[in-house]
Amino acid sequence: MTSTIDLNMVNAYIPGQADVGAETAATIARRDRLLGPAYRLMYERPLHIVKGEGAWLIASDGRRFLDTYNNVTSLGHCHPRVVEAITRQVATLATNTRYLHDTILELAERLLATVPGTDLAHLMLTCTGSEANDLAYRIAKVRTGGTGIIVTETAYHGFTDAVSQFSPSLGVSVDLGAHVRLVPAPSAYHAEGADLADRFTRDVEAAIADLKRHGIKPAMLIVDSVFTSDGILPDPAGFLKGAVAAIRDAGGLFIADEVQPGFGRTGKHMWGFQRHGVAPDIVTMGKPMGNGQPIAGLLVTQDAVAQFGRDSRYFNTFAGNTVSCAAAVAVLDAIEAEGLIAHAATTGKALRDGIAALGRRHDAIGDVRGIGMFVGVEIVSDPATRAPDRALTSRIVNLLSDKGILISACAKGHNVLKIRPPLVLNGEQVDMVVRGLDESLSEAMAGG
Amino acid sequence: MTSTIDLNMVNAYIPGQADVGAETAATIARRDRLLGPAYRLMYERPLHIVKGEGAWLIASDGRRFLDTYNNVTSLGHCHPRVVEAITRQVATLATNTRYLHDTILELAERLLATVPGTDLAHLMLTCTGSEANDLAYRIAKVRTGGTGIIVTETAYHGFTDAVSQFSPSLGVSVDLGAHVRLVPAPSAYHAEGADLADRFTRDVEAAIADLKRHGIKPAMLIVDSVFTSDGILPDPAGFLKGAVAAIRDAGGLFIADEVQPGFGRTGKHMWGFQRHGVAPDIVTMGKPMGNGQPIAGLLVTQDAVAQFGRDSRYFNTFAGNTVSCAAAVAVLDAIEAEGLIAHAATTGKALRDGIAALGRRHDAIGDVRGIGMFVGVEIVSDPATRAPDRALTSRIVNLLSDKGILISACAKGHNVLKIRPPLVLNGEQVDMVVRGLDESLSEAMAGG
Repeated sequence: MTSTIDLNMVNAYIPGQADVGAETAATIARRDRLLGPAYRLMYERPLHIVKGEGAWLIASDGRRFLDTYNNVTSLGHCHPRVVEAITRQVATLATNTRYLHDTILELAERLLATVPGTDLAHLMLTCTGSEANDLAYRIAKVRTGGTGIIVTETAYHGFTDAVSQFSPSLGVSVDLGAHVRLVPAPSAYHAEGADLADRFTRDVEAAIADLKRHGIKPAMLIVDSVFTSDGILPDPAGFLKGAVAAIRDAGGLFIADEVQPGFGRTGKHMWGFQRHGVAPDIVTMGKPMGNGQPIAGLLVTQDAVAQFGRDSRYFNTFAGNTVSCAAAVAVLDAIEAEGLIAHAATTGKALRDGIAALGRRHDAIGDVRGIGMFVGVEIVSDPATRAPDRALTSRIVNLLSDKGILISACAKGHNVLKIRPPLVLNGEQVDMVVRGLDESLSEAMAGG
Repeated sequence: MTSTIDLNMVNAYIPGQADVGAETAATIARRDRLLGPAYRLMYERPLHIVKGEGAWLIASDGRRFLDTYNNVTSLGHCHPRVVEAITRQVATLATNTRYLHDTILELAERLLATVPGTDLAHLMLTCTGSEANDLAYRIAKVRTGGTGIIVTETAYHGFTDAVSQFSPSLGVSVDLGAHVRLVPAPSAYHAEGADLADRFTRDVEAAIADLKRHGIKPAMLIVDSVFTSDGILPDPAGFLKGAVAAIRDAGGLFIADEVQPGFGRTGKHMWGFQRHGVAPDIVTMGKPMGNGQPIAGLLVTQDAVAQFGRDSRYFNTFAGNTVSCAAAVAVLDAIEAEGLIAHAATTGKALRDGIAALGRRHDAIGDVRGIGMFVGVEIVSDPATRAPDRALTSRIVNLLSDKGILISACAKGHNVLKIRPPLVLNGEQVDMVVRGLDESLSEAMAGG
């Protein structure tokens, strides 16, 4: 089943592409039989991981991989503070939000304190970022009376039935909803000097007009505030303002999807939207929230959720359980105690600078960009035309994996290296990534 | 916000209904402020729980509550085997399904071994039962080319945008989809000697015909195999057969929602559908799967998932993570090692017999039914007319809570006591429940 090449996932394992060895081949065959055709593995040679510690993943054969891709374990794998919190709480009480419990309230207070200057007033919890975006959409429909959704053209917001309909990066086999409109991603590299803010605003306005022309009332504009799947597009800060004003004028809500950028990754703020100086109606969050424990959720304004709350009670059996909340509080403690937001800024800059320096020797590096500990490297076949080089991008990802460094790729052209290390990455590890990338580029260009 | 009476949730806390004490009132106010208007609490006097052990929940003031309601912690709270598995795995590795890992494969093998005689071939994992039912619907749509859904009239299948549209028990403020048809729940107590299997089959056939008449191709019939929200309706075994044949004839799939009945609760089989001698295309599962750790999923036939798998890759960041899988394997181990399925049968029968004996002295007990460790007690104002007594039902639930015994209620008339103890309940605890119910009925009838 998985022998079909998955054109929609740039870094998927494709059977037969590389020799994986007899043992791995047997495990893959067993997995295909047991988990069926919908699951994918990463890398030409899939990794059999048995242990994680800090920025490292350790394979069954003892090989160590520097994990600069998973942004769930943002504090590093098996962070002692989170392990301790889960270990303690799971032996004490694991139950739900229909009883009173203090930890969920502490978590809400702590998270609401990260969004000063907004009207965000309440925390609602889910288990996954997909559930958070799904719930945001339900709330937006009730608040606005509309159903229309605007997203960027390679956005990913999740896998539920509703959310997959506004996640174009899932590929053409997953239908977009008739109530969904796509706008081009705001890429400074490809805008060639144009006013990106103005262009993005006009694109969103055109999408709103098109929804209305089809009798569809707009419910929301939702964007990942660093546009991860679109290729990691943080600059210029502030370019979201006009688009947010436009959706509000049309009666819709603005949802900041912080599942990937959130929890300090952008290196100055807790949330990516804060760089843009906008105030969302709903902020969704997930992945790094429990450093691996399944917890996600949203912050919402009183105005947005009032009618939904009155009419539609919300209960999610596992969401807000005491163990997941304890993990999430430990994550906030660690971010603060270890000064990880400032660290993400300085170390992330060192990583971008190191890679930018490589750009002077490697023509394939068209652009190096990012914010905090989130780096995108656009790989092109020709710096003049800026044409994407998907094959080279995939080659680099796999050469790096063979060297023990894990990254992935994204963007419409499947040609942007996505480097998203744990916030605790140190200087020596930055050097490893830069050196590995240098070597991989050289080898790939030499036909390696 | 929560001061509106929630007519859709029989056991919701309603402010002002009872004196909860200053400390609890303050915690509730803080919670309303932080979590907003969509959350509900249970019981007239909400419980502030700080510790769980076995069948017991312990409140912040030291009171102990016999928990005969939560079917997540089906092995009892803080079961040592599950606590140990989570504690060990969370310190070793918590990562996702895009790497190879053995525990998920062991879990799949163990679960697939529980469904002999079916074509169910693959395990797919989610974090919640809602996600599992949402994914089942996506798979059913791709397989059948249809969108139509048939559910029972008070069914609950989850809270995502898609699933809430086929969860009528959420109440009239949550719109059903235009592609959703409701059929009456198959209640033997109210069928008055009619052939329940035949009646249910004819109802499903009529729903199929009505979908088709509206140009909607049927995608699936989905039922909770003990009809929990409809009032716990297990008998007569086998009544599902005709309905399953009808949906298959119409080109739709049959989905058994085992989120509540699954994992041995029915006392003879692992899954509720097995009593009915039917073979689902998809079986969804959740709640007790990790005894509190967020894990859920589905078993699916190769035929049902083949095209979905080819076209729509499936990835859920937290689902199938190594920690949740370790918890789920420990749950299966405990069910086996402690003989919990057989125990659920004998102890559940003792519980039903004890309550049935009360029925001879309390006219309000219209019917006592159930299967394994799942008991429904229908409370009526008049045994002759079988008219529901919602107010009395609610009174009993709250009197029991004040006596330190936790249950809830369900059904269209909000008049069925829902007693769903952990599978480890012992004989002494059975006696406590029966005695507490006896006293509560007497007090309630005396105007208590």
